[in-house]
Amino acid sequence: MNNLLIVGSVALDSIETPAGTVENALGGAATYGSTAASLFAPVQLVGVVGDDFPTEHIDFLKSRNIDIAGLQIVEGGKTFRWKGDYNTDLNAAVTHETQLGVFEHFAPQLPENFRDAEYVFLANINPSVQLATLDQIRAPKLVLCDTMNLWINIAREHVFNVFERVDIAVLNDGEARLLTEEDNIIRAGRALLKRGPRIVIIKKGEHGALMFSGDEIFSAPSFPVEEVVDPTGAGDSFAGALMGYVAKTGDYSIENIKRGVVYGGVVASTTVQDFSLRSLSAATMESIDERFAAVQKMAAF
Amino acid sequence: MNNLLIVGSVALDSIETPAGTVENALGGAATYGSTAASLFAPVQLVGVVGDDFPTEHIDFLKSRNIDIAGLQIVEGGKTFRWKGDYNTDLNAAVTHETQLGVFEHFAPQLPENFRDAEYVFLANINPSVQLATLDQIRAPKLVLCDTMNLWINIAREHVFNVFERVDIAVLNDGEARLLTEEDNIIRAGRALLKRGPRIVIIKKGEHGALMFSGDEIFSAPSFPVEEVVDPTGAGDSFAGALMGYVAKTGDYSIENIKRGVVYGGVVASTTVQDFSLRSLSAATMESIDERFAAVQKMAAF
Repeated sequence: MNNLLIVGSVALDSIETPAGTVENALGGAATYGSTAASLFAPVQLVGVVGDDFPTEHIDFLKSRNIDIAGLQIVEGGKTFRWKGDYNTDLNAAVTHETQLGVFEHFAPQLPENFRDAEYVFLANINPSVQLATLDQIRAPKLVLCDTMNLWINIAREHVFNVFERVDIAVLNDGEARLLTEEDNIIRAGRALLKRGPRIVIIKKGEHGALMFSGDEIFSAPSFPVEEVVDPTGAGDSFAGALMGYVAKTGDYSIENIKRGVVYGGVVASTTVQDFSLRSLSAATMESIDERFAAVQKMAAF
Repeated sequence: MNNLLIVGSVALDSIETPAGTVENALGGAATYGSTAASLFAPVQLVGVVGDDFPTEHIDFLKSRNIDIAGLQIVEGGKTFRWKGDYNTDLNAAVTHETQLGVFEHFAPQLPENFRDAEYVFLANINPSVQLATLDQIRAPKLVLCDTMNLWINIAREHVFNVFERVDIAVLNDGEARLLTEEDNIIRAGRALLKRGPRIVIIKKGEHGALMFSGDEIFSAPSFPVEEVVDPTGAGDSFAGALMGYVAKTGDYSIENIKRGVVYGGVVASTTVQDFSLRSLSAATMESIDERFAAVQKMAAF
């Protein structure tokens, strides 16, 4: 069983969806990613919060087999807060307010034992922080990065700098189109492969995911969900579960990463069924394996 | 090898897409459906055109193993014409002009030997014409219907009357949402199953198709296409190929219909690669089987 190191945002989210609202709920890319990954493998979390970050959230992370030695708690600082809502189609978030807080000047300092990490998930955060984290890791075996529209818009070249140093890049379809300026998702995936990663994964929400490697494309169906309550964290859960599965098995062949992609979709389908981490944190390996088997059946012909 | 009877529109299309334009090109749901199906099985076409319908198109249909004894040619009548363009995302057609012509008062009269048809594809046409066709067929084994937004908007109950008499209903995702008033496609598919068909297939364009039967969902990937030139007829090709494959094999088990759905997607992926029937009519069973094998590989994990 290998550790998985995850760097990214730890946040307090206020969210409105057609199904309801939450205020200052536990959120952030690294939080979702770590919680999802911890279903499979032990996690080392790198991030930052202020001293306003509730103790119950710290306790929750600890309870999940997540090592928080890399989570800086800044005295007098404010935790990153995000406020937003979703259109009725639940595909696009509309940001109402972002308070960066301690996030603005975050310079990660990895604990000594984190620097031997072999499996690394650079979750959504400023690409310069992703690179600063990667610089401190001695000999990573498999590195996956995620990103978001914000960084593509304001730090496009930095996003590509990260791409040059990772094995797997994960984006959603809108981000892939934005980054490549290609409308066609097949062309977008193939164009991104040329920017460094040996694997590019494009998430398509309810339509599953496409994984590009060499000339090959793998099409992963999503697990069917009848009611999406809150899509926040779906992508982070996807990538966290994928990397957690690969770290657990220690097998980063293309064939095994395909299974990781399906696990990613399955865990994401759980995340969206309730607000914040409620549904994800209630998931068990048994419930996840049941959905994995259902997806296998759905895809067979 | 069984015959497949297809009723639907035969038309002349003028189309503009980002890739170019065509004027008065051969089109229509039954035309695309028959051409696609004829890759697999002999087709009996039921439709209507005016005497302005070019002889070369008649010759083309005859050359494809399509029996046109059921194609009425109305003296002094005008063939149905459609003019439209597509948004840059190529997902939605915008109609500029529709000239119904002989289509307006079409009352199908099936040749005697067509009435023994066992496999029937009710392609997109007024649902009352679909029913009038079905009424003349003695003992169909497997009936599939398609529809479109227009009929859902102006003849919703007639669409459901057709649903009560078919085995398979095929719709695209937008039509499924419109007909059920459900945003969620999984709920929409399950709701439609309750209206009669034992199988509901929801097409999602580049995202493939979902097939609902009982509690089961089958997720079929689409064949990846880097440049969509003209999406016209993709859905008709899909359903035509599906029914052609099933008629050819004479096996309408759920498992075999799944393979038919994949063939449908593969043939549709060919149709969209050029205007009108250019690309579809150049396809061979060999090229189709190659794409089928590629999709099998894409879906395996």
